[in-house]
Amino acid sequence: MAIILGDSDLDQLPVMQLAIEAIEEAILARSAGDLVSPPRHNVSFAEKGDLIFTIGGTLDDASIAGFRVYDTFRGPRHEQIVAVWSTETAELQGLIIGTRLGEVRTGAIGGIAIRYMSSPEARTVGIIGSGQQARTQLEAAALVRELTHVRVYSRSERRRYLFALEMEQRLGIPVEPVDTPLRAVSDADIVICATTSLTPVIEAGWLKPGVHINTVGPKTVDEHELGLDVAAAADLVATDSPEQVRAYKAPFFLHGSPSAERLVDLAAIVSGKVIARQAPDQTTLFCSAGLSGTEVLVAAHILAAFKAKAGAG
Amino acid sequence: MAIILGDSDLDQLPVMQLAIEAIEEAILARSAGDLVSPPRHNVSFAEKGDLIFTIGGTLDDASIAGFRVYDTFRGPRHEQIVAVWSTETAELQGLIIGTRLGEVRTGAIGGIAIRYMSSPEARTVGIIGSGQQARTQLEAAALVRELTHVRVYSRSERRRYLFALEMEQRLGIPVEPVDTPLRAVSDADIVICATTSLTPVIEAGWLKPGVHINTVGPKTVDEHELGLDVAAAADLVATDSPEQVRAYKAPFFLHGSPSAERLVDLAAIVSGKVIARQAPDQTTLFCSAGLSGTEVLVAAHILAAFKAKAGAG
Repeated sequence: MAIILGDSDLDQLPVMQLAIEAIEEAILARSAGDLVSPPRHNVSFAEKGDLIFTIGGTLDDASIAGFRVYDTFRGPRHEQIVAVWSTETAELQGLIIGTRLGEVRTGAIGGIAIRYMSSPEARTVGIIGSGQQARTQLEAAALVRELTHVRVYSRSERRRYLFALEMEQRLGIPVEPVDTPLRAVSDADIVICATTSLTPVIEAGWLKPGVHINTVGPKTVDEHELGLDVAAAADLVATDSPEQVRAYKAPFFLHGSPSAERLVDLAAIVSGKVIARQAPDQTTLFCSAGLSGTEVLVAAHILAAFKAKAGAG
Repeated sequence: MAIILGDSDLDQLPVMQLAIEAIEEAILARSAGDLVSPPRHNVSFAEKGDLIFTIGGTLDDASIAGFRVYDTFRGPRHEQIVAVWSTETAELQGLIIGTRLGEVRTGAIGGIAIRYMSSPEARTVGIIGSGQQARTQLEAAALVRELTHVRVYSRSERRRYLFALEMEQRLGIPVEPVDTPLRAVSDADIVICATTSLTPVIEAGWLKPGVHINTVGPKTVDEHELGLDVAAAADLVATDSPEQVRAYKAPFFLHGSPSAERLVDLAAIVSGKVIARQAPDQTTLFCSAGLSGTEVLVAAHILAAFKAKAGAG
């Protein structure tokens, strides 16, 4: 039978590193026109909720296909299923069930944005938010840049201390909790906003020249964790999926602003068609949309690594 | 983690009995308007093939949701995945991976047709075909009627002997291989056609008054294992999904014939709105479409039985 992994199996593997490689591959495939990534497919079970499918894969030589499914039913636990087939052999390669893969994937997309958009000299991170998304964004950042110092702000003092303690231990670099968002970002080469805030958490004027910013939280016209001032101040604004931000139910936060028209596809940057920074003091902004179809590629890399490890062990 | 079963786990359980109960429930839910059963969802991976999803569930008190997915990639092995959630608790109840569930489900739909459409006195079966579908149809028939004798015809003498040997052992009733389709069906109370034949395999004139017929194989205008003569001779023609036969890429074999207009929904028969037979010599015909969404209900019943057995053991 196919390999089936749960969250605890993923802890045995360098999943963020694997996810970053997979996302880089996915984005290059997208640039080459080889990424299959149709819109989500929702099936409604009336007032009970929905099942939501993101289906995708690649069409290159070692092509794969698969899907992720998750639910919106009312209940305490929500597990996602990701399944991967080889389209060359029709073999079901495996399934990953749980919540970890989805978190790692969004982190890895942020990591690729940082790898291709931030200054290679970036050493310090300022992070707003102390949830799971903040953790995976920072973990990915630490894999693509040689970080020396991190500052974290979130509204709950307890939660920012816990975050600092946990991430310092996990990453082996100093992570300092600070008591204002200004202190978190004012000296940062890289700023990560990973909150659920519906109003801006930082101001453009607080940021250093040359900074790169990732925004992971809300970003619609009415509800956004970053204001238009930050976008306007950026020399380049990119997203992993211009189609998805255009398809948001509520319009994208840049909708109608000059920044919307110059929105660059991250795939154009990763493939070298667009240069992210022309000068060291330029500011770049990445708006994470969660490019659909990429879960399948991340799962394929993890399943292959698990198989290789099991074979070697 | 959720329960995950493969084909070999299913062998430990009375899966056909469970599937027949599940299909009966599904058809009653359909009659009450509580079955969620949208059209299939296909995603194309260009010339590599497709992933095909049938998503469905029920909206009653103990409501469930889930999906089946299968592929059309080129390769020797094709495994289906069926997953089931409780929409009350959002809990992923489990997955069944393999090929057995799909076969059992189609058999169980045939079994329900036989239970509600054939004469309660039916004791003999004539079966054309000796493949997997023929096996599961006969297995289901033997659970809903007290069979005393089965005759089987298929073009390969070797295969019909093997079928007879295997099914006789499995069901504990005489199964006789015969060398013409006429001999298989002429004395049968129940006729099952489960072939891949593109041209009719039996004639209306061969059949006994009062017979019930299940057709499981091809049934489009140009390619059909049963001819219009059999449909015309039937007093009642039913299908498990009028919507699905209308949505066939090539028109349904009854399209344009008088029989098409009197096609009855099996749900109307199971729920008692339509009486299948008014007199003992009436002939009934069931055209199996494979009502989509029912795999999820069958899987739910199997997972519950597995859980009950594991709890008891």
